[in-house]
Amino acid sequence: MSQSIDIAVIGATGTVGETIVQILEERDFPVGDLHLLASAESAGSSVAYRGKNVRVREVDAFDFNKVKIAFFAAGPAVTRSYAARATAAGCAVIDLSGGLPVEQAPNVVPEVNAPLLARLTKPYQVACPSPAAAALSVVLAPLHALIDVQRISVTACMAVSSLGREGVTELARQTAELLNVRPLEPKVFDRQMAFNVLAQVGTPDAQGHVPLEKRLVAELRELLSLPLIKVGVTCIQVPVFFGDSLSVSVQTSASVDVAAVAAALDAAQGIELVDAGDYPTPVGDAVGQDAVYVGRLRGGIDDACELNFWVTSDNVRKGAALNAVQVAELLIKDVV
Amino acid sequence: MSQSIDIAVIGATGTVGETIVQILEERDFPVGDLHLLASAESAGSSVAYRGKNVRVREVDAFDFNKVKIAFFAAGPAVTRSYAARATAAGCAVIDLSGGLPVEQAPNVVPEVNAPLLARLTKPYQVACPSPAAAALSVVLAPLHALIDVQRISVTACMAVSSLGREGVTELARQTAELLNVRPLEPKVFDRQMAFNVLAQVGTPDAQGHVPLEKRLVAELRELLSLPLIKVGVTCIQVPVFFGDSLSVSVQTSASVDVAAVAAALDAAQGIELVDAGDYPTPVGDAVGQDAVYVGRLRGGIDDACELNFWVTSDNVRKGAALNAVQVAELLIKDVV
Repeated sequence: MSQSIDIAVIGATGTVGETIVQILEERDFPVGDLHLLASAESAGSSVAYRGKNVRVREVDAFDFNKVKIAFFAAGPAVTRSYAARATAAGCAVIDLSGGLPVEQAPNVVPEVNAPLLARLTKPYQVACPSPAAAALSVVLAPLHALIDVQRISVTACMAVSSLGREGVTELARQTAELLNVRPLEPKVFDRQMAFNVLAQVGTPDAQGHVPLEKRLVAELRELLSLPLIKVGVTCIQVPVFFGDSLSVSVQTSASVDVAAVAAALDAAQGIELVDAGDYPTPVGDAVGQDAVYVGRLRGGIDDACELNFWVTSDNVRKGAALNAVQVAELLIKDVV
Repeated sequence: MSQSIDIAVIGATGTVGETIVQILEERDFPVGDLHLLASAESAGSSVAYRGKNVRVREVDAFDFNKVKIAFFAAGPAVTRSYAARATAAGCAVIDLSGGLPVEQAPNVVPEVNAPLLARLTKPYQVACPSPAAAALSVVLAPLHALIDVQRISVTACMAVSSLGREGVTELARQTAELLNVRPLEPKVFDRQMAFNVLAQVGTPDAQGHVPLEKRLVAELRELLSLPLIKVGVTCIQVPVFFGDSLSVSVQTSASVDVAAVAAALDAAQGIELVDAGDYPTPVGDAVGQDAVYVGRLRGGIDDACELNFWVTSDNVRKGAALNAVQVAELLIKDVV
């Protein structure tokens, strides 16, 4: 790719935004001008890119005609406020906030449904799913040919970085307070997060489901093109800084050949299958890595039609920033 | 109960053994002589009971004719070495170690299968199940009449105290080392436990299942008298000191009336149902409490035959020590 592309990153000062800038550099993305944007509060600071400090400017004043691709890594409200302006300027929008309706911006995980991009029309609007949906879809996609998935039951152990830098700071602060026997004052979380597990991430609806759980179900169905598949999800918050982990149980219509599943995962793109006996963890395996790690692959204790496994991946990288840059790499073959 | 009963606690210096002594005092169990026993290494230390320090003596030298009930709260090997001696002396054995075959010592959780005790013959041998099985059976038992459970899928988030005092010390040590940026040296766990989640608790068999997971499945079937029920379990280790938490998804043969389930749990013995919207956590709710806490009770997002809930309980109390004392309270109506 000789031609370079002018890029905007909205929400450049957040964990995901900063990681997008870092991954653009790591992967040697053909960046022309790089425009880092944020809300009025965050504007003025700077983010390192290729050894320089790039000034972060206010998104509201930005002319999207200056760029070909805009990454929206701030909140959904910011996306809803400015994506239309970017699109009107003919700029491709890659949304990481979940702020756009799926009819307008379909979710894309390159390993899973890249061909979808070819069916979109310019100016492109593409969404990145929630980190858990991205990771789980990468693992389930290669299994289609092998197993007929009837139902998926997931317990998602979310890292505190799913709440951004605030969540990370809060866990560190709470832990230090407890170890120093100082009074604990929860701020970001509604109670003690350190040395605790919170069974509810977000505010439940009348049926008891939280938005994140409903989003994960909808995104899995969309990404896997399995609109009718039954998915049961519980999202819990664990005292881990980075890396989401998923305990997954899959029910199939026929008995599962676990060895064949292992071979398929081993051969699949973007997956690191950990040997039986060992297992991957967020710290030490997934964090800072591009791959989605899979371990504890096994059948049911008493059910030949059951497949269980453990998934862990960097929620900020593959779950968000890396996936967005991978989408951009596919788009630039076409958008410039 | 006017008559007092002489008691032995084997493994008195461990977290569970100490908690048994504490609960005997709390519940004003009619203790006559209290004999605290342990291995040669731990013998000589003392444990507080009713304001006195009771000396811990070596189990090997103990004459079980001195007591009517012996709590085995050390490891399974210790139980296998001395339970027969206690039984030969006509002493009732309450095993918390999982060291005796189920045919010899059935698992009893008073809220679930107390009537079983009436069918046993003296000298009694009763087992307490694993903490997760005890907690989950207490929740599932009241639902029999309401729902026909076809399958249970559980992700059990185990506290580090499931490994005893060593696990607790190790998590505290690792956390302090990390916060002080000192090199981390895992000992009890095979890797970093602080700010991490471990997907495997114990050594898996050729099929990938660990003993704890197989034990939980067998115990649930036994306690609920549902030998054919399908149970899928994943046990993970979380950086929590005390309190096991279970993310549970139940499939039923007919659509579930969630309100009726809530009413049944509300009315059930030993259960604290947390209001919708709120949720219980190990820290702040379950730890130090006798009740099993249930929250996030809800149906499936898309499946009327699905019931989901979250369970958290004190793994050392209700999961072990309290259950053992509750069993003893039922036995003494009969053993003296």
